[in-house]
Amino acid sequence: MVVETPQATHHDLCIIGSGSANSLIDESLEHLSIAQVERGVGSTGAFGGTCLNVGCIPTKMYAHPATLAASAPDASRLGVDLEFHRAHWGQIRDRIFGRIDQISSGGRDWRHQNENVTLLEGEGRFVDAHTLDVTSANGSTRRITADRFVIATGSRPRRLEVPGADEITVHTSDDIMRRETLPASLIILGGGFISAEFAHIFASFGTRVQIINRSGALLRQHDAEISQRFTEIMGRRLPVHLDEPVVSVARGGEGVIVRTKDAEGVEREHTAEALLNATGRIPNSDGLGLDAAGVTVENGRVVVDEHQRTSQPHIFALGDVSSPFQLKHVANHEAKVVQHNLLHSEEPIAVNHEAVPAAVFGHPQVAAVGLTESAAREEFDDVVTVTQPYGSVAYGWAMEDEDHFCKLVARCDGALLGAHIIGPEASILIQPLVQAMATGLDVRTMATGQYWIHPALTELVENALLALPVDRKEP
Amino acid sequence: MVVETPQATHHDLCIIGSGSANSLIDESLEHLSIAQVERGVGSTGAFGGTCLNVGCIPTKMYAHPATLAASAPDASRLGVDLEFHRAHWGQIRDRIFGRIDQISSGGRDWRHQNENVTLLEGEGRFVDAHTLDVTSANGSTRRITADRFVIATGSRPRRLEVPGADEITVHTSDDIMRRETLPASLIILGGGFISAEFAHIFASFGTRVQIINRSGALLRQHDAEISQRFTEIMGRRLPVHLDEPVVSVARGGEGVIVRTKDAEGVEREHTAEALLNATGRIPNSDGLGLDAAGVTVENGRVVVDEHQRTSQPHIFALGDVSSPFQLKHVANHEAKVVQHNLLHSEEPIAVNHEAVPAAVFGHPQVAAVGLTESAAREEFDDVVTVTQPYGSVAYGWAMEDEDHFCKLVARCDGALLGAHIIGPEASILIQPLVQAMATGLDVRTMATGQYWIHPALTELVENALLALPVDRKEP
Repeated sequence: MVVETPQATHHDLCIIGSGSANSLIDESLEHLSIAQVERGVGSTGAFGGTCLNVGCIPTKMYAHPATLAASAPDASRLGVDLEFHRAHWGQIRDRIFGRIDQISSGGRDWRHQNENVTLLEGEGRFVDAHTLDVTSANGSTRRITADRFVIATGSRPRRLEVPGADEITVHTSDDIMRRETLPASLIILGGGFISAEFAHIFASFGTRVQIINRSGALLRQHDAEISQRFTEIMGRRLPVHLDEPVVSVARGGEGVIVRTKDAEGVEREHTAEALLNATGRIPNSDGLGLDAAGVTVENGRVVVDEHQRTSQPHIFALGDVSSPFQLKHVANHEAKVVQHNLLHSEEPIAVNHEAVPAAVFGHPQVAAVGLTESAAREEFDDVVTVTQPYGSVAYGWAMEDEDHFCKLVARCDGALLGAHIIGPEASILIQPLVQAMATGLDVRTMATGQYWIHPALTELVENALLALPVDRKEP
Repeated sequence: MVVETPQATHHDLCIIGSGSANSLIDESLEHLSIAQVERGVGSTGAFGGTCLNVGCIPTKMYAHPATLAASAPDASRLGVDLEFHRAHWGQIRDRIFGRIDQISSGGRDWRHQNENVTLLEGEGRFVDAHTLDVTSANGSTRRITADRFVIATGSRPRRLEVPGADEITVHTSDDIMRRETLPASLIILGGGFISAEFAHIFASFGTRVQIINRSGALLRQHDAEISQRFTEIMGRRLPVHLDEPVVSVARGGEGVIVRTKDAEGVEREHTAEALLNATGRIPNSDGLGLDAAGVTVENGRVVVDEHQRTSQPHIFALGDVSSPFQLKHVANHEAKVVQHNLLHSEEPIAVNHEAVPAAVFGHPQVAAVGLTESAAREEFDDVVTVTQPYGSVAYGWAMEDEDHFCKLVARCDGALLGAHIIGPEASILIQPLVQAMATGLDVRTMATGQYWIHPALTELVENALLALPVDRKEP
């Protein structure tokens, strides 16, 4: 059935992508002849995928110093004079990418040395279900065939599609971190986690940031109380324009002009030196010739079953191209499932998409796992919730905190359905709740069956658990 | 058997102390006539015990702004110019004690209003097993009798007993936080957690701090690797004089002179404006007439059984006066056990002293739960350990961390025996490990049975778990 052209090289396995799929290729696959196809990500065409090069890792390498830069007002409120002078953008950028670029190119070099792996740098496109053409940057095409495939091509930033967008520089997360200079002012389009993180980074470094958002709240995917509080806090820190779809962009003003229409239909104009489009990411399922391969795509995502198989049983997919979660830790898990299922096709394991946490490394941080209150109420009729302020526990007193909280969603019998934290260290505080959901620990046992260090910030979680009005079990 | 003098008032229950024991007195004991005896703690004779007035809570209210003050060097290393100008000591002190003193006096006032509780302010001393004399500050004595007693008198800072100590001001944790001014220089005696926390607070606020320690390492109660690393890091931050017992103190130099003998027997002299003795805390079991009551004391601690009963079945004890742990979260737990056992004497519950975590809110933070490596090796012959650096995970890259780590101690079968973390947010990062020990979750299931947010600092714990060389179970 496979039409092998004279030029085609045959492999046991072809992996498209070098992000989460890269970890697939370890000693357990040494017996296979593998073709790895990678077109590169970001403005440098880097090897290693989004997370390493243009995603989680560099953004956190910026967000952490940004958090330090942003601590001056908190310190001053607490009686400590701490003055932020400036962020050395070029020095920070070079430190971060000096490290990352080396890991990326080291990964590429190492792959070229693997005896059983052929790294093909270029765009892959299926010709049929077993054949892929790989077109390199210089336009030359190599054809390969393989018994099995893994599609792990990730996702990319959505492009801004309004009049004028082609005539100005519209940054995305792919290139803004490599800017030559820190902009004096920045407009960020979008209200999701990418917007939240870059707003934090640039505002903390001294850029005048404005957020323009089509909808009426930031972090709308989160629990409504979290979204509302985050929107309030950001609104106190910098101008947040809500319910303002972008109509057009143009060169002018401080550098770029963004024209919007507000909720009343009135046209408004905003200007800044630079513009970042952070309106979301779309799966890289297009351009792969998936039609020709007979791989089903829905809403832009490659459809997979619980074993990460596509509609073609010999083709797997994982990560942002197929996952309902655009999260590195989920992609890593899916990669482990795919690896197992490649090696043990008779005893495949299923993916686990339960109790998936996520964090936003903004200022404040946000972390969540499980159901929002509204999703829980749609599913169950015995939902109880609690909203516990940081300021209610001793470490929150030490912070003189008035803004942040932990919200828990549970059933009357004590089953934890969801946890949502907005505030300092949310990304760490959430973990015991993730662990409880993953191990089926009920909220009462979780609260009283372990010690919580006094007066650590973890008492926030303890007190939230204790305050949940679940059916009480005596000790 | 009880000899009631004409003056004696009888109560169902007498509680000595207003710290952790205070929470005993809730609506569940409304049916009892209760005498509460409290002599006051700290330089103000405050109601509410050590934690609230002179311990955990105010120290963390100082330690948190100190951590912000100390962040400037980290920020600068990461390319952010953050300048520490000064800490407004008086403002910080007044903010902290303005809040705490109000809670303390509010607690006292509220107790005076309780219909079933008589608050007796003064020193309690047993006359016999059912009789207590309470001597107030003005010298008057009231005698009470009670069916049952709870001794919860806590602990106090050890006094400095060397020549000259009576002639100078020797601060302890009881009074140093209320100093009129921030000292220009401070000598801290001792190398435990109190020393560590005050060294952080004062050094961060700009005081020239020196630590003088009798033994050869700081935080010696902790795992040896933690103690060693903490000692190294503190030694880079400020002068740490090890193996130098204090010989005498005197007025002179910058304010006080501390004479020590070093490891070679050579006399040395150190001077600073102020002196803090932080050489430990001793249980308040003396002065209570426990002999007369027939209550056994060993090594200064009231002896209790698993139900928190002393050698006299009608007398309970809890907290620092009896507990091998001088930890508020343990005292709180013991208070719950005592309350239950007072109410349900036929079905007493036992105290749980397993998996007790503790944290040091220094710079760096330290947190620990369970056995140190050396204690584990004494008990088991199949101990495995891992020491995982912060710098090995993505958020540690963001911090450019080179100093800190998580150490785990386990058995070959995957049972977690201990966890030890030194570094940022250690007091929060430890909690999932506490939860695992408390629920009997093995290290492999803990690592792979839940999601760990990428790239949160919690990946430190995940990677440490994965690196433990326990017997591997396939997924």
